[in-house]
Amino acid sequence: MADDTTTVAALKARVADFVHAREWEKFHRTANLAKAISVEAAELLELFQWREDSQPLDAATRHRVEEELADVLIYCLSATNSLGVDLSEIVLKKLERNEKRYPAKEWRGRARDPSVER
Amino acid sequence: MADDTTTVAALKARVADFVHAREWEKFHRTANLAKAISVEAAELLELFQWREDSQPLDAATRHRVEEELADVLIYCLSATNSLGVDLSEIVLKKLERNEKRYPAKEWRGRARDPSVER
Amino acid sequence: MADDTTTVAALKARVADFVHAREWEKFHRTANLAKAISVEAAELLELFQWREDSQPLDAATRHRVEEELADVLIYCLSATNSLGVDLSEIVLKKLERNEKRYPAKEWRGRARDPSVER
Amino acid sequence: MADDTTTVAALKARVADFVHAREWEKFHRTANLAKAISVEAAELLELFQWREDSQPLDAATRHRVEEELADVLIYCLSATNSLGVDLSEIVLKKLERNEKRYPAKEWRGRARDPSVER
Repeated sequence: MADDTTTVAALKARVADFVHAREWEKFHRTANLAKAISVEAAELLELFQWREDSQPLDAATRHRVEEELADVLIYCLSATNSLGVDLSEIVLKKLERNEKRYPAKEWRGRARDPSVER
Repeated sequence: MADDTTTVAALKARVADFVHAREWEKFHRTANLAKAISVEAAELLELFQWREDSQPLDAATRHRVEEELADVLIYCLSATNSLGVDLSEIVLKKLERNEKRYPAKEWRGRARDPSVER
Repeated sequence: MADDTTTVAALKARVADFVHAREWEKFHRTANLAKAISVEAAELLELFQWREDSQPLDAATRHRVEEELADVLIYCLSATNSLGVDLSEIVLKKLERNEKRYPAKEWRGRARDPSVER
Repeated sequence: MADDTTTVAALKARVADFVHAREWEKFHRTANLAKAISVEAAELLELFQWREDSQPLDAATRHRVEEELADVLIYCLSATNSLGVDLSEIVLKKLERNEKRYPAKEWRGRARDPSVER
Protein backbone atom coordinates (compact mmCIF):
# COMPACT_ATOMS: atom_id res chain seq x y z
CA MET A 1 0.00 0.00 0.00
CA ALA A 2 1.11 3.57 -0.73
CA ASP A 3 0.16 4.32 2.89
CA ASP A 4 3.21 2.30 4.04
CA THR A 5 5.63 4.80 2.54
CA THR A 6 3.61 8.05 2.28
CA THR A 7 4.25 10.47 5.12
CA VAL A 8 1.57 12.77 6.49
CA ALA A 9 3.81 15.71 5.55
CA ALA A 10 3.80 14.60 1.90
CA LEU A 11 -0.02 14.63 1.78
CA LYS A 12 -0.16 18.00 3.54
CA ALA A 13 2.30 19.46 1.03
CA ARG A 14 0.27 18.09 -1.88
CA VAL A 15 -2.89 19.79 -0.55
CA ALA A 16 -1.01 23.06 0.14
CA ASP A 17 0.23 23.06 -3.48
CA PHE A 18 -3.30 22.56 -4.80
CA VAL A 19 -4.59 25.46 -2.69
CA HIS A 20 -1.64 27.70 -3.53
CA ALA A 21 -1.92 27.16 -7.31
CA ARG A 22 -5.46 28.62 -7.11
CA GLU A 23 -4.60 31.37 -4.59
CA TRP A 24 -7.26 29.86 -2.36
CA GLU A 25 -5.43 30.53 0.93
CA LYS A 26 -7.86 33.39 1.56
CA PHE A 27 -10.75 30.88 1.45
CA HIS A 28 -8.94 28.06 3.30
CA ARG A 29 -8.98 29.75 6.69
CA THR A 30 -9.84 27.55 9.65
CA ALA A 31 -13.33 29.02 10.22
CA ASN A 32 -14.31 28.33 6.60
CA LEU A 33 -12.70 24.88 6.60
CA ALA A 34 -14.79 23.93 9.65
CA LYS A 35 -17.84 24.58 7.47
CA ALA A 36 -16.31 22.78 4.48
CA ILE A 37 -15.52 19.66 6.57
CA SER A 38 -19.16 19.49 7.76
CA VAL A 39 -20.42 19.93 4.20
CA GLU A 40 -18.22 17.14 2.81
CA ALA A 41 -19.01 14.88 5.80
CA ALA A 42 -22.70 15.28 4.89
CA GLU A 43 -22.01 14.38 1.25
CA LEU A 44 -20.47 11.16 2.57
CA LEU A 45 -23.46 10.58 4.88
CA GLU A 46 -25.88 11.19 1.99
CA LEU A 47 -24.66 7.97 0.35
CA PHE A 48 -26.09 6.06 3.34
CA GLN A 49 -29.22 8.18 3.70
CA TRP A 50 -31.94 5.81 2.54
CA ARG A 51 -30.29 2.47 3.11
CA GLU A 52 -30.20 0.06 6.00
CA ASP A 53 -26.86 0.30 7.77
CA SER A 54 -26.35 -3.42 7.28
CA GLN A 55 -26.88 -3.29 3.48
CA PRO A 56 -23.59 -4.13 1.70
CA LEU A 57 -22.00 -1.47 -0.55
CA ASP A 58 -22.06 -2.18 -4.30
CA ALA A 59 -18.89 -1.27 -6.25
CA ALA A 60 -20.23 1.99 -7.68
CA THR A 61 -21.47 3.32 -4.31
CA ARG A 62 -18.24 2.20 -2.67
CA HIS A 63 -16.32 4.28 -5.22
CA ARG A 64 -18.46 7.32 -4.34
CA VAL A 65 -17.85 6.65 -0.61
CA GLU A 66 -14.09 6.71 -1.23
CA GLU A 67 -14.36 10.00 -3.13
CA GLU A 68 -16.43 11.76 -0.47
CA LEU A 69 -14.19 10.42 2.32
CA ALA A 70 -11.21 11.81 0.36
CA ASP A 71 -12.90 15.24 0.26
CA VAL A 72 -13.29 15.25 4.06
CA LEU A 73 -9.63 14.26 4.41
CA ILE A 74 -8.43 16.93 1.97
CA TYR A 75 -10.15 19.68 3.98
CA CYS A 76 -8.81 18.21 7.26
CA LEU A 77 -5.30 18.22 5.80
CA SER A 78 -5.82 21.82 4.68
CA ALA A 79 -7.01 22.74 8.21
CA THR A 80 -3.80 21.36 9.73
CA ASN A 81 -1.91 23.49 7.19
CA SER A 82 -3.97 26.57 8.03
CA LEU A 83 -3.51 26.00 11.79
CA GLY A 84 0.19 25.13 11.34
CA VAL A 85 -0.20 22.05 13.54
CA ASP A 86 1.27 18.59 13.41
CA LEU A 87 -1.53 16.24 12.30
CA SER A 88 0.20 13.14 13.72
CA GLU A 89 0.66 14.84 17.06
CA ILE A 90 -2.95 15.97 17.51
CA VAL A 91 -4.23 12.54 16.44
CA LEU A 92 -1.91 10.64 18.78
CA LYS A 93 -2.63 13.00 21.70
CA LYS A 94 -6.39 12.62 21.20
CA LEU A 95 -6.09 8.82 21.06
CA GLU A 96 -4.18 8.89 24.37
CA ARG A 97 -6.91 11.04 25.88
CA ASN A 98 -9.61 8.70 24.55
CA GLU A 99 -7.76 5.73 26.03
CA LYS A 100 -8.07 7.30 29.48
CA ARG A 101 -11.68 8.28 28.91
CA TYR A 102 -12.73 4.87 27.59
CA PRO A 103 -10.57 2.29 29.42
CA ALA A 104 -10.52 -0.92 27.37
CA LYS A 105 -11.52 -3.06 30.35
CA GLU A 106 -14.64 -1.05 31.02
CA TRP A 107 -15.72 -0.38 27.43
CA ARG A 108 -15.00 -3.72 25.75
CA GLY A 109 -17.83 -4.37 23.28
CA ARG A 110 -19.92 -1.48 24.64
CA ALA A 111 -21.00 1.80 23.02
CA ARG A 112 -22.10 4.96 24.81
CA ASP A 113 -25.77 4.94 25.84
CA PRO A 114 -27.55 7.50 23.62
CA SER A 115 -30.32 8.04 26.19
CA VAL A 116 -27.86 9.53 28.69
CA GLU A 117 -27.35 13.23 28.06
CA ARG A 118 -23.71 14.27 28.14
CA MET B 1 7.46 17.95 12.81
CA ALA B 2 6.37 14.38 13.53
CA ASP B 3 4.42 14.57 10.25
CA ASP B 4 7.75 14.48 8.36
CA THR B 5 8.47 10.92 9.48
CA THR B 6 5.03 9.50 10.37
CA THR B 7 3.51 7.36 7.63
CA VAL B 8 -0.22 7.20 7.01
CA ALA B 9 0.00 3.45 7.66
CA ALA B 10 1.39 4.09 11.16
CA LEU B 11 -1.58 6.32 12.06
CA LYS B 12 -4.03 3.82 10.61
CA ALA B 13 -2.44 1.01 12.64
CA ARG B 14 -2.63 3.10 15.82
CA VAL B 15 -6.36 3.71 15.29
CA ALA B 16 -6.96 0.02 14.46
CA ASP B 17 -5.27 -0.96 17.75
CA PHE B 18 -7.44 1.44 19.73
CA VAL B 19 -10.60 0.01 18.14
CA HIS B 20 -9.44 -3.59 18.50
CA ALA B 21 -8.55 -3.23 22.21
CA ARG B 22 -12.21 -2.30 22.85
CA GLU B 23 -13.68 -4.86 20.41
CA TRP B 24 -15.35 -1.93 18.68
CA GLU B 25 -14.98 -3.33 15.14
CA LYS B 26 -18.70 -4.16 15.24
CA PHE B 27 -19.44 -0.43 15.76
CA HIS B 28 -16.77 0.87 13.38
CA ARG B 29 -18.52 -0.21 10.20
CA THR B 30 -18.48 2.26 7.33
CA ALA B 31 -22.19 3.19 7.60
CA ASN B 32 -21.78 4.06 11.30
CA LEU B 33 -18.51 5.89 10.71
CA ALA B 34 -20.21 8.09 8.11
CA LYS B 35 -22.53 9.23 10.91
CA ALA B 36 -19.64 9.58 13.40
CA ILE B 37 -17.63 11.74 10.96
CA SER B 38 -20.62 14.11 10.56
CA VAL B 39 -21.12 14.26 14.33
CA GLU B 40 -17.46 15.12 15.02
CA ALA B 41 -17.37 17.60 12.13
CA ALA B 42 -20.30 19.39 13.81
CA GLU B 43 -18.47 19.46 17.16
CA LEU B 44 -15.64 21.23 15.32
CA LEU B 45 -18.11 23.61 13.65
CA GLU B 46 -19.77 24.34 17.02
CA LEU B 47 -16.59 26.11 18.15
CA PHE B 48 -17.20 28.69 15.39
CA GLN B 49 -20.98 28.85 15.84
CA TRP B 50 -21.46 32.28 17.39
CA ARG B 51 -18.30 34.05 16.28
CA GLU B 52 -17.42 36.13 13.27
CA ASP B 53 -15.31 34.11 10.85
CA SER B 54 -12.64 36.77 10.99
CA GLN B 55 -12.32 36.72 14.81
CA PRO B 56 -8.89 35.33 15.78
CA LEU B 57 -8.72 32.08 17.81
CA ASP B 58 -7.57 32.44 21.42
CA ALA B 59 -5.24 29.71 22.72
CA ALA B 60 -7.91 27.78 24.65
CA THR B 61 -10.36 27.68 21.72
CA ARG B 62 -7.53 26.77 19.36
CA HIS B 63 -6.71 23.79 21.58
CA ARG B 64 -10.37 22.67 21.38
CA VAL B 65 -10.27 23.10 17.57
CA GLU B 66 -7.25 20.79 17.38
CA GLU B 67 -9.00 18.18 19.54
CA GLU B 68 -12.19 18.17 17.49
CA LEU B 69 -10.25 18.12 14.22
CA ALA B 70 -8.35 15.12 15.59
CA ASP B 71 -11.65 13.34 16.28
CA VAL B 72 -12.76 13.82 12.66
CA LEU B 73 -9.39 12.49 11.47
CA ILE B 74 -9.53 9.45 13.79
CA TYR B 75 -12.90 8.39 12.38
CA CYS B 76 -11.67 9.02 8.80
CA LEU B 77 -8.63 6.83 9.49
CA SER B 78 -10.95 4.16 10.93
CA ALA B 79 -13.14 4.37 7.82
CA THR B 80 -10.16 3.69 5.56
CA ASN B 81 -9.40 0.69 7.79
CA SER B 82 -12.99 -0.51 7.62
CA LEU B 83 -13.08 -0.08 3.82
CA GLY B 84 -9.59 -1.59 3.41
CA VAL B 85 -8.54 1.28 1.14
CA ASP B 86 -5.33 3.17 0.73
CA LEU B 87 -5.89 6.63 2.23
CA SER B 88 -3.02 8.22 0.27
CA GLU B 89 -4.33 6.80 -2.97
CA ILE B 90 -7.91 8.04 -2.57
CA VAL B 91 -6.68 11.50 -1.50
CA LEU B 92 -4.23 11.82 -4.39
CA LYS B 93 -6.80 10.56 -6.92
CA LYS B 94 -9.40 13.05 -5.68
CA LEU B 95 -6.89 15.91 -5.87
CA GLU B 96 -6.14 14.95 -9.49
CA ARG B 97 -9.85 14.94 -10.25
CA ASN B 98 -10.29 18.34 -8.55
CA GLU B 99 -7.40 19.72 -10.58
CA LYS B 100 -9.30 18.89 -13.76
CA ARG B 101 -12.58 20.21 -12.38
CA TYR B 102 -11.09 23.46 -11.13
CA PRO B 103 -8.26 24.40 -13.52
CA ALA B 104 -5.90 26.80 -11.75
CA LYS B 105 -6.03 29.32 -14.59
CA GLU B 106 -9.82 29.60 -14.46
CA TRP B 107 -10.30 29.46 -10.70
CA ARG B 108 -7.40 31.60 -9.45
CA GLY B 109 -8.72 33.61 -6.48
CA ARG B 110 -12.34 32.62 -7.18
CA ALA B 111 -14.77 30.50 -5.14
CA ARG B 112 -17.87 28.72 -6.42
CA ASP B 113 -20.93 30.98 -6.67
CA PRO B 114 -23.38 29.81 -3.98
CA SER B 115 -26.39 31.18 -5.87
CA VAL B 116 -25.87 28.69 -8.72
CA GLU B 117 -27.53 25.38 -7.95
CA ARG B 118 -25.32 22.40 -8.71
CA MET C 1 -52.97 17.66 19.31
CA ALA C 2 -51.71 21.18 19.97
CA ASP C 3 -50.52 21.17 16.34
CA ASP C 4 -54.19 21.34 15.21
CA THR C 5 -54.63 24.83 16.64
CA THR C 6 -51.07 26.23 16.87
CA THR C 7 -50.16 28.51 13.97
CA VAL C 8 -46.65 28.72 12.58
CA ALA C 9 -46.69 32.44 13.46
CA ALA C 10 -47.33 31.60 17.14
CA LEU C 11 -44.23 29.36 17.27
CA LYS C 12 -42.12 31.95 15.46
CA ALA C 13 -43.23 34.65 17.92
CA ARG C 14 -42.40 32.39 20.88
CA VAL C 15 -38.85 31.84 19.53
CA ALA C 16 -38.42 35.57 18.79
CA ASP C 17 -39.39 36.37 22.40
CA PHE C 18 -36.83 33.88 23.75
CA VAL C 19 -34.09 35.41 21.59
CA HIS C 20 -35.13 38.99 22.39
CA ALA C 21 -35.21 38.44 26.17
CA ARG C 22 -31.49 37.51 25.96
CA GLU C 23 -30.57 40.19 23.40
CA TRP C 24 -29.32 37.36 21.21
CA GLU C 25 -30.43 38.93 17.89
CA LYS C 26 -26.78 39.76 17.24
CA PHE C 27 -25.94 36.03 17.40
CA HIS C 28 -29.08 34.81 15.58
CA ARG C 29 -28.05 36.09 12.17
CA THR C 30 -28.69 33.75 9.25
CA ALA C 31 -25.03 32.84 8.67
CA ASN C 32 -24.64 31.78 12.32
CA LEU C 33 -27.97 29.96 12.36
CA ALA C 34 -26.87 27.91 9.34
CA LYS C 35 -24.01 26.64 11.53
CA ALA C 36 -26.31 26.16 14.54
CA ILE C 37 -28.80 24.10 12.49
CA SER C 38 -25.98 21.77 11.34
CA VAL C 39 -24.69 21.44 14.90
CA GLU C 40 -28.11 20.53 16.32
CA ALA C 41 -28.84 18.19 13.39
CA ALA C 42 -25.63 16.34 14.30
CA GLU C 43 -26.70 16.08 17.95
CA LEU C 44 -29.85 14.39 16.69
CA LEU C 45 -27.81 12.12 14.41
CA GLU C 46 -25.50 11.21 17.30
CA LEU C 47 -28.37 9.38 18.99
CA PHE C 48 -28.38 6.93 16.04
CA GLN C 49 -24.59 6.77 15.67
CA TRP C 50 -23.82 3.27 16.90
CA ARG C 51 -27.14 1.56 16.39
CA GLU C 52 -28.66 -0.38 13.56
CA ASP C 53 -31.22 1.77 11.75
CA SER C 54 -33.82 -0.92 12.32
CA GLN C 55 -33.30 -1.08 16.11
CA PRO C 56 -36.43 0.26 17.87
CA LEU C 57 -36.13 3.39 20.05
CA ASP C 58 -36.47 2.84 23.79
CA ALA C 59 -38.48 5.49 25.70
CA ALA C 60 -35.45 7.35 27.09
CA THR C 61 -33.69 7.60 23.71
CA ARG C 62 -36.96 8.60 22.07
CA HIS C 63 -37.26 11.46 24.55
CA ARG C 64 -33.73 12.61 23.65
CA VAL C 65 -34.63 12.38 19.93
CA GLU C 66 -37.63 14.67 20.51
CA GLU C 67 -35.45 17.19 22.36
CA GLU C 68 -32.75 17.32 19.68
CA LEU C 69 -35.35 17.53 16.90
CA ALA C 70 -36.91 20.45 18.82
CA ASP C 71 -33.52 22.21 18.87
CA VAL C 72 -33.21 21.92 15.07
CA LEU C 73 -36.74 23.29 14.70
CA ILE C 74 -36.11 26.20 17.09
CA TYR C 75 -33.10 27.35 15.06
CA CYS C 76 -35.07 26.90 11.79
CA LEU C 77 -37.89 29.03 13.23
CA SER C 78 -35.31 31.63 14.28
CA ALA C 79 -33.83 31.59 10.76
CA THR C 80 -37.23 32.37 9.23
CA ASN C 81 -37.48 35.26 11.73
CA SER C 82 -33.99 36.48 10.85
CA LEU C 83 -34.72 36.24 7.10
CA GLY C 84 -38.19 37.74 7.52
CA VAL C 85 -39.74 35.00 5.38
CA ASP C 86 -42.97 33.11 5.57
CA LEU C 87 -42.13 29.57 6.74
CA SER C 88 -45.35 28.07 5.36
CA GLU C 89 -44.74 29.66 1.99
CA ILE C 90 -41.17 28.43 1.55
CA VAL C 91 -42.17 24.92 2.68
CA LEU C 92 -45.19 24.73 0.36
CA LYS C 93 -43.21 26.15 -2.59
CA LYS C 94 -40.42 23.61 -2.07
CA LEU C 95 -42.91 20.74 -1.86
CA GLU C 96 -44.40 21.87 -5.18
CA ARG C 97 -40.96 21.95 -6.71
CA ASN C 98 -40.18 18.49 -5.31
CA GLU C 99 -43.43 17.17 -6.76
CA LYS C 100 -42.27 18.18 -10.22
CA ARG C 101 -38.78 16.82 -9.64
CA TYR C 102 -39.95 13.50 -8.26
CA PRO C 103 -43.24 12.68 -10.05
CA ALA C 104 -45.19 10.17 -7.94
CA LYS C 105 -45.67 7.80 -10.87
CA GLU C 106 -41.96 7.54 -11.56
CA TRP C 107 -40.68 7.50 -7.97
CA ARG C 108 -43.26 5.27 -6.26
CA GLY C 109 -41.34 3.12 -3.74
CA ARG C 110 -37.95 4.18 -5.15
CA ALA C 111 -35.13 6.20 -3.55
CA ARG C 112 -32.37 8.07 -5.38
CA ASP C 113 -29.46 5.86 -6.41
CA PRO C 114 -26.49 6.90 -4.24
CA SER C 115 -23.96 5.65 -6.80
CA VAL C 116 -25.07 8.28 -9.34
CA GLU C 117 -23.27 11.55 -8.77
CA ARG C 118 -25.57 14.56 -8.85
CA MET D 1 -48.33 36.25 6.15
CA ALA D 2 -49.58 32.74 5.50
CA ASP D 3 -47.89 31.80 8.80
CA ASP D 4 -50.61 33.74 10.66
CA THR D 5 -53.30 31.30 9.58
CA THR D 6 -51.40 28.10 8.74
CA THR D 7 -51.44 25.52 11.53
CA VAL D 8 -48.53 23.18 12.17
CA ALA D 9 -50.93 20.28 11.59
CA ALA D 10 -51.68 21.58 8.08
CA LEU D 11 -47.98 21.57 7.13
CA LYS D 12 -47.47 18.11 8.65
CA ALA D 13 -50.44 16.78 6.67
CA ARG D 14 -49.07 18.29 3.46
CA VAL D 15 -45.70 16.56 4.01
CA ALA D 16 -47.40 13.26 4.91
CA ASP D 17 -49.38 13.42 1.63
CA PHE D 18 -46.21 14.03 -0.38
CA VAL D 19 -44.51 11.03 1.26
CA HIS D 20 -47.59 8.81 0.95
CA ALA D 21 -48.12 9.56 -2.77
CA ARG D 22 -44.63 8.12 -3.39
CA GLU D 23 -44.95 5.23 -0.91
CA TRP D 24 -41.86 6.63 0.78
CA GLU D 25 -42.97 5.79 4.35
CA LYS D 26 -40.46 2.92 4.28
CA PHE D 27 -37.66 5.44 3.70
CA HIS D 28 -38.99 8.14 6.05
CA ARG D 29 -38.25 6.27 9.25
CA THR D 30 -36.78 8.33 12.05
CA ALA D 31 -33.25 6.87 11.81
CA ASN D 32 -33.08 7.74 8.09
CA LEU D 33 -34.61 11.17 8.62
CA ALA D 34 -31.92 11.98 11.20
CA LYS D 35 -29.40 11.46 8.38
CA ALA D 36 -31.53 13.42 5.88
CA ILE D 37 -31.85 16.40 8.25
CA SER D 38 -28.04 16.53 8.64
CA VAL D 39 -27.57 16.28 4.87
CA GLU D 40 -29.99 19.13 4.13
CA ALA D 41 -28.58 21.26 6.99
CA ALA D 42 -25.17 20.91 5.31
CA GLU D 43 -26.61 22.00 1.94
CA LEU D 44 -27.83 25.13 3.72
CA LEU D 45 -24.42 25.60 5.37
CA GLU D 46 -22.67 25.16 2.00
CA LEU D 47 -24.18 28.46 0.82
CA PHE D 48 -22.14 30.22 3.53
CA GLN D 49 -19.00 28.09 3.09
CA TRP D 50 -16.60 30.53 1.52
CA ARG D 51 -18.08 33.84 2.59
CA GLU D 52 -17.52 36.10 5.56
CA ASP D 53 -20.42 35.76 7.99
CA SER D 54 -20.99 39.49 7.79
CA GLN D 55 -21.28 39.56 3.96
CA PRO D 56 -24.89 40.47 2.99
CA LEU D 57 -26.94 37.92 1.01
CA ASP D 58 -27.68 38.83 -2.63
CA ALA D 59 -31.18 38.00 -3.89
CA ALA D 60 -30.19 34.82 -5.75
CA THR D 61 -28.26 33.34 -2.80
CA ARG D 62 -31.08 34.34 -0.45
CA HIS D 63 -33.51 32.38 -2.64
CA ARG D 64 -31.25 29.31 -2.40
CA VAL D 65 -31.03 29.78 1.40
CA GLU D 66 -34.83 29.73 1.62
CA GLU D 67 -35.00 26.55 -0.47
CA GLU D 68 -32.42 24.67 1.59
CA LEU D 69 -34.00 25.85 4.86
CA ALA D 70 -37.33 24.54 3.52
CA ASP D 71 -35.73 21.14 2.88
CA VAL D 72 -34.53 20.93 6.50
CA LEU D 73 -38.03 21.88 7.69
CA ILE D 74 -39.74 19.32 5.42
CA TYR D 75 -37.65 16.48 6.88
CA CYS D 76 -38.25 17.77 10.43
CA LEU D 77 -42.00 17.82 9.76
CA SER D 78 -41.72 14.29 8.38
CA ALA D 79 -39.81 13.20 11.50
CA THR D 80 -42.62 14.47 13.76
CA ASN D 81 -45.03 12.46 11.56
CA SER D 82 -42.84 9.36 11.77
CA LEU D 83 -42.50 9.72 15.58
CA GLY D 84 -46.19 10.60 15.98
CA VAL D 85 -45.33 13.57 18.20
CA ASP D 86 -46.79 17.02 18.56
CA LEU D 87 -44.27 19.44 17.02
CA SER D 88 -45.63 22.46 18.93
CA GLU D 89 -45.40 20.58 22.19
CA ILE D 90 -41.77 19.45 21.80
CA VAL D 91 -40.72 22.95 20.65
CA LEU D 92 -42.50 24.72 23.53
CA LYS D 93 -41.17 22.20 26.10
CA LYS D 94 -37.61 22.65 24.84
CA LEU D 95 -37.90 26.44 24.95
CA GLU D 96 -39.07 26.19 28.59
CA ARG D 97 -36.10 23.98 29.37
CA ASN D 98 -33.74 26.41 27.61
CA GLU D 99 -35.21 29.29 29.62
CA LYS D 100 -34.18 27.53 32.82
CA ARG D 101 -30.77 26.62 31.44
CA TYR D 102 -30.00 30.09 30.12
CA PRO D 103 -31.72 32.57 32.49
CA ALA D 104 -32.19 35.88 30.66
CA LYS D 105 -30.57 37.86 33.46
CA GLU D 106 -27.38 35.84 33.36
CA TRP D 107 -27.10 35.37 29.58
CA ARG D 108 -28.16 38.80 28.28
CA GLY D 109 -25.91 39.58 25.29
CA ARG D 110 -23.57 36.64 26.02
CA ALA D 111 -22.89 33.47 24.04
CA ARG D 112 -21.44 30.21 25.38
CA ASP D 113 -17.65 30.22 25.61
CA PRO D 114 -16.37 27.77 22.95
CA SER D 115 -13.13 27.12 24.83
CA VAL D 116 -15.01 25.48 27.73
CA GLU D 117 -15.67 21.83 27.03
CA ARG D 118 -19.22 20.79 27.83
